[in-house]
Amino acid sequence: MSSIRGFWAVVPAGGAGTRLWPLSRAGRPKFLLDLTGSGRTLLQATCDRLEPLAGERILVVTGARHAAAVADQVPSLGPGRVLAEPTPRDSMAAIAWAAAVVEAHERDAIIGSFAADHVIPDEEAFAAAVREAVSVAHEDRLVTIGIEPTYPATGFGYLQMGRPLAGHATARAVRQFVEKPDAARATAYLSTGEFRWNAGMFVVRARVLLDLLALWHPDLAAGARRIAADPDQLDTLWPQLERIAIDHAVAEPAADAGRVAVVPGGFTWDDIGDFTSLAQLIDPEPAAQPVVLGDRDLVTAVQASGLVVPGSGRAVALVGVEDIVVVDTPDAVLITTRDRAQDVKAVVDALKAAGRTDLV
Amino acid sequence: MSSIRGFWAVVPAGGAGTRLWPLSRAGRPKFLLDLTGSGRTLLQATCDRLEPLAGERILVVTGARHAAAVADQVPSLGPGRVLAEPTPRDSMAAIAWAAAVVEAHERDAIIGSFAADHVIPDEEAFAAAVREAVSVAHEDRLVTIGIEPTYPATGFGYLQMGRPLAGHATARAVRQFVEKPDAARATAYLSTGEFRWNAGMFVVRARVLLDLLALWHPDLAAGARRIAADPDQLDTLWPQLERIAIDHAVAEPAADAGRVAVVPGGFTWDDIGDFTSLAQLIDPEPAAQPVVLGDRDLVTAVQASGLVVPGSGRAVALVGVEDIVVVDTPDAVLITTRDRAQDVKAVVDALKAAGRTDLV
Repeated sequence: MSSIRGFWAVVPAGGAGTRLWPLSRAGRPKFLLDLTGSGRTLLQATCDRLEPLAGERILVVTGARHAAAVADQVPSLGPGRVLAEPTPRDSMAAIAWAAAVVEAHERDAIIGSFAADHVIPDEEAFAAAVREAVSVAHEDRLVTIGIEPTYPATGFGYLQMGRPLAGHATARAVRQFVEKPDAARATAYLSTGEFRWNAGMFVVRARVLLDLLALWHPDLAAGARRIAADPDQLDTLWPQLERIAIDHAVAEPAADAGRVAVVPGGFTWDDIGDFTSLAQLIDPEPAAQPVVLGDRDLVTAVQASGLVVPGSGRAVALVGVEDIVVVDTPDAVLITTRDRAQDVKAVVDALKAAGRTDLV
Repeated sequence: MSSIRGFWAVVPAGGAGTRLWPLSRAGRPKFLLDLTGSGRTLLQATCDRLEPLAGERILVVTGARHAAAVADQVPSLGPGRVLAEPTPRDSMAAIAWAAAVVEAHERDAIIGSFAADHVIPDEEAFAAAVREAVSVAHEDRLVTIGIEPTYPATGFGYLQMGRPLAGHATARAVRQFVEKPDAARATAYLSTGEFRWNAGMFVVRARVLLDLLALWHPDLAAGARRIAADPDQLDTLWPQLERIAIDHAVAEPAADAGRVAVVPGGFTWDDIGDFTSLAQLIDPEPAAQPVVLGDRDLVTAVQASGLVVPGSGRAVALVGVEDIVVVDTPDAVLITTRDRAQDVKAVVDALKAAGRTDLV
């Protein structure tokens, strides 16, 4: 199947991934890592997944310090296809800049924004959802792809689906976006069957996104368009852009205005938020032996379970530890449990406080 | 106080210490390590403790592969004071050889045998016990120093004390030696107040030891004396010596014959059998933070307790793990718990089975 005419993929590549320390570091964030053992980094796998849909029309927006690594990992990105942010300005500025660049190239183009560090094993189902989302975006709606919840997650935002949209296979209106719920509320959401995880995937005509943004954050929309028109002004204009997430800047107010649609994604999705989800992703079945990401021969386990990442070439030996997480790297080793994996960020904070910025 | 006239210290330096892997290795056993953070290895601390009692009359008996390291660590040992065993033949052969060497030097000398890998913080109390033991040994008894049990250990042998010996401050007869008991029996032993841990410390006239040995194992006694008389025959005679522990060869039958005395040691003692006892030794008070053997600055602990040995220069980070044991070395890292520390030997067995003899 050929790529979608007039469709551009935008890949925001940011986020430190501090809950995946010491694998991820400020200088080597999650999206630059092969976290699944597939031989491709998350960024590469994301571009692999988008290439059949967007052809060579892929833009990666990333921090200036990572631009060279991005170009190195994805050599098929042509000149001008890596947008290097001088400083982090949150997701709306990044996507608005890319949208403005696309709009300047091709006034009616549709963009789809997909984070560089998500995992979607079923590429066909993903492609089908994007293709339907593009067809809905032609009606000048902001379209999101909503992930069917597999458990009452408290770590993701949700969206509530409304009426089906005529003329489309599965698309529906979006009634509202909701913030990360507590466990009781998440369970209630799942019981209704009306809620989907908000994975931050947005498909929309570039011009429509910027015009919607202009309704609520006119300076941000105008700034992005000025930078696209005159890249020499990037360093001057960029620091003035408002720091705001795309959900708050556009998705939520647009939903309230009845302008948002959702295509329910018929695929599993993971943002690998911590080592527990990484272990689950590598081996979904709980096992008596630890899951190993890397060279199995380096791990000796005696009555142990959990996740081991032998990342320094050294032997890792476990005796009588259950649901343990051990991540071994050349300059740091982390020991935690699957239950406490979400608290790994506290180590990064402690190391920063102790002045060990070389390790974070 | 000057050293004890006619007293020689014998230091058997053997034992792999596999339960302390990966700190201890076949090529770098426990006695060559500084396990207490004192700046002295266990062997060095043992010799430091004995030098005030024996002066320069210290003999170390060790495996041939460790003889150079022993001489290097204890340069005060003169020529001929390191006895290098061609192969391991258990404790009786080692001590009998040393006894025969001493006997050949000085026919009436008394030896005291003290393992190279035990920890005795109170050197004065130790010295007082040895001095009393030497005075009892002048009566041609086999004298042991019995450690007052601090808990109903199942990992040590015990001895049962009998009547006080006239003319000595604390010495008593020994009724019997008993093997490592189960927990119920160990508790019963403690309740009587008559039992002491057998720490393998024996003080005895060299000639008396060999004569006692000759009663039950004449070939072993004769072989040791022949090697002492003609060291050139070591490689020929050594492999013919019986493999047996001193407890079974001499201490138990001599106790049955009423020839054994005990001086109750008024000092704490530890053989650092595993990482749990190492943690206890370094920090006897249970703490909310992990005990660290090494550079505390390398350890970041968030809601964690246990023992950390940061031994490679790398950072070690813990999150939400209790009573954990982490031992980090340049080529291997071990993760276990205080409860399971005695099972670390299983890792060494597994590594051998996997052909990783470079790591054991």
